[in-house]
Amino acid sequence: MNNIKKYDIAIIGGGPGGYVCAIRAAQNGKKVVVLEENRLGGICLNWGCIPTKSLLSSADIYNNFKKANFIDINDSDYKLKWDKIIEKSRSSSDLLSKGVSYLMKKNNIEIISGHASIIDNNTISILSEDKTKTEIFSKNIVIATGASPKSIPGISFDKINVITSREAMVLKKCPKSITILGGGAIGVEFAYFFKSFGSDVRLIELQERLMPESDHDISLELENQFKNLGINVHTSTKISNFNASKDRVSYSIGSDDFSSEICLIAIGLSGNINNLGLENTMIKTSNSFIEIDEQQRTSVSNIFAIGDVAGPPLLAHVASAEGKFVSDLISSKILDHKTFNKNNIPSCVYSKPEIASVGLTENNAKTKYGDIKVGKFPFSALGKAVATDSTSGFIKVIFDSNYGELLGCHIIGKNATEIIISACIARSLETTAEEILSTIHPHPTISESFQEAVADAYGEAFHV
Amino acid sequence: MNNIKKYDIAIIGGGPGGYVCAIRAAQNGKKVVVLEENRLGGICLNWGCIPTKSLLSSADIYNNFKKANFIDINDSDYKLKWDKIIEKSRSSSDLLSKGVSYLMKKNNIEIISGHASIIDNNTISILSEDKTKTEIFSKNIVIATGASPKSIPGISFDKINVITSREAMVLKKCPKSITILGGGAIGVEFAYFFKSFGSDVRLIELQERLMPESDHDISLELENQFKNLGINVHTSTKISNFNASKDRVSYSIGSDDFSSEICLIAIGLSGNINNLGLENTMIKTSNSFIEIDEQQRTSVSNIFAIGDVAGPPLLAHVASAEGKFVSDLISSKILDHKTFNKNNIPSCVYSKPEIASVGLTENNAKTKYGDIKVGKFPFSALGKAVATDSTSGFIKVIFDSNYGELLGCHIIGKNATEIIISACIARSLETTAEEILSTIHPHPTISESFQEAVADAYGEAFHV
Repeated sequence: MNNIKKYDIAIIGGGPGGYVCAIRAAQNGKKVVVLEENRLGGICLNWGCIPTKSLLSSADIYNNFKKANFIDINDSDYKLKWDKIIEKSRSSSDLLSKGVSYLMKKNNIEIISGHASIIDNNTISILSEDKTKTEIFSKNIVIATGASPKSIPGISFDKINVITSREAMVLKKCPKSITILGGGAIGVEFAYFFKSFGSDVRLIELQERLMPESDHDISLELENQFKNLGINVHTSTKISNFNASKDRVSYSIGSDDFSSEICLIAIGLSGNINNLGLENTMIKTSNSFIEIDEQQRTSVSNIFAIGDVAGPPLLAHVASAEGKFVSDLISSKILDHKTFNKNNIPSCVYSKPEIASVGLTENNAKTKYGDIKVGKFPFSALGKAVATDSTSGFIKVIFDSNYGELLGCHIIGKNATEIIISACIARSLETTAEEILSTIHPHPTISESFQEAVADAYGEAFHV
Repeated sequence: MNNIKKYDIAIIGGGPGGYVCAIRAAQNGKKVVVLEENRLGGICLNWGCIPTKSLLSSADIYNNFKKANFIDINDSDYKLKWDKIIEKSRSSSDLLSKGVSYLMKKNNIEIISGHASIIDNNTISILSEDKTKTEIFSKNIVIATGASPKSIPGISFDKINVITSREAMVLKKCPKSITILGGGAIGVEFAYFFKSFGSDVRLIELQERLMPESDHDISLELENQFKNLGINVHTSTKISNFNASKDRVSYSIGSDDFSSEICLIAIGLSGNINNLGLENTMIKTSNSFIEIDEQQRTSVSNIFAIGDVAGPPLLAHVASAEGKFVSDLISSKILDHKTFNKNNIPSCVYSKPEIASVGLTENNAKTKYGDIKVGKFPFSALGKAVATDSTSGFIKVIFDSNYGELLGCHIIGKNATEIIISACIARSLETTAEEILSTIHPHPTISESFQEAVADAYGEAFHV
């Protein structure tokens, strides 16, 4: 074993956590290797964020076309080519995965393809597709293996009629009917997508509202808009008598029976902690996720976990930020007592309506701070929204009354996912309302709604 | 004249400067009146920002539809209803103008309809449409009369073939061919609009590049993209032999002769300073604009000018900010030596590509600061741009090398106008690169390009 290759950092998994961690490590002058058994880019790039954004963009284009009364056409005068929608989505992923390969080469990052297993705290064995086995030594190990869709006890994925989001992205045709279990981000995006192309969609959430962790007003507005789109929304709902046959699923809600061609289960994710050799280490897990401290360190001091496998929030941009943090920590680019800050993480949903949030919900802010100021601005009062026929939705900001801290921002409607960054930057700089109000926002934009909402919180609203 | 009505603030003009000034004055407890001879909302709302955004939104929808290979259709299978495009644009303006009326009522702001003339430093006479004359007294006067399109010496607007942007918004049909003189924001937006619906467009700019005040790279990218769209772009170009007949205009560029159905002149604006009674005061003007000090005060201490009539930058959001500032100054809500800050004003163009800028261009920054750091990020490397087929364009940031101040940000491409606010807020808070880099940006968005560009400026780019 004298010839064993040695690294400063070995990263298991080349998703948005792993590959960003690797680039940063290389920038920091570390010898780094990425171990990946599938395609670079991980779920986000290959089977998550990116391909779904392409699908949703096609849905937006199609919806806008159907709504455009200046295009004079009968429904019978055109046909939808479903395969083109899927093709475009796949080619986005292909292009970006190649882009990550390019970045790895450019930064001289070694990639070993195959399944990685930890042998001991410094040794990893990689089994390649052709059954070759490689062992490597690394001072530090970063586990970035991601997560996989959970099912409901008693229901298994047959990947034909009972599917995960992965199969939902590449269906051969648009289903006439689809049941979606889980009213979180994934369920909501697919409900919008399939409804846009004509599916009969039933969206079922166990908790009392869609996007249960969102601000209450956001959930209500989403439910309203989805009902207006004709999506059948069931909240506080548990299904029973689930049965999947060759070409249909059936189930009951209370005494009512339902069926659909497809059932997409999107109730959450479990960390990918199996077949990783964790049993050869003292790494602790809990609830399928690896336990970490505030520096992303596992119970073993030279092994870190980042991204989905390290537990919620399961978001690509968190994985990337954690990857960067861990590389900087290992490279002593940051102070060795610095912790990873999870207090200012935005989350986005890309359906129409779009949803974006950062910080505390109104209820949580009230519980934690007591005295708060809430400002709200409806998009119906916004010039750009009126001019672009996007008047549904609103923005809401929450301030602590005592110190004027911006505790949270919640947006539902056009461009929500692009403008939430205002609140993220403002929060990270501990901005006061006064500073936001004195920043000239460009008109006409959706982004100026942020300033209007802040003005409303302080009783100075102009346009409501 | 004992019955003359008395006010704290009389505002001449109910556009985005005037009406915001009025609302703020009312919020500050002042007795305020708005004198307006046309519709509330001014040019921006009735014949500028808002109706053009509706037209451009229709163009976007139509372009996306034409590009969507998943909608299987022949060009002969549908017809364009031009009148619906115009109708939608007009109804946006109508709705928002009514909205301003509602805001005026809600804030108990008096409106007097008619043409206002200043009689002396405290007296204004208003001539209504029915020839009734009213005189009012006001402690302070705010002139917010806006600006009007300039023509070229020797060419006059016949408003049929030789038109301003106002007529361009309500043409009875899409012109087969149109010449646009002026490659600034208005010319660029209309070039994109008419080209989208099939016009043969010739866009002519006297200076050496489109958007001559933009960063060089922005102008180049715009020209490139416009040429790819099939727009005929002429820069450093002066036309001669201009002639407008009943249904055509003709002109020469050098020895080449051109003609088109319509000529839109968009070479700039003059302040609306005539028939205002300025001659009854000591107010000074220069180049058609009212001269003001750093507090928007004219040469007469109780008379202020805001918005377009007070000179460049001629932007609605500047007018509104100035309106708010002046109301606060008059109401002693701000310190009486505070000046209006014009150093952080974003500007936007809403064609495809969108353009947005704030702060100094690279050239100006180099001249002023010497040692600068420039970071650039192409949208082709951005996941959201790839997934939504919007990979043209880039974002560029400029920092002062010595103090790390963010001197400028320039964006061309998808959502540019929505994400420029990141840079505005960052600049207004004197953010450092480090603070932007440590703010988690949501993925996948166009807004995360800001962070990537900042990382590039500091040699830490991830995705290029």
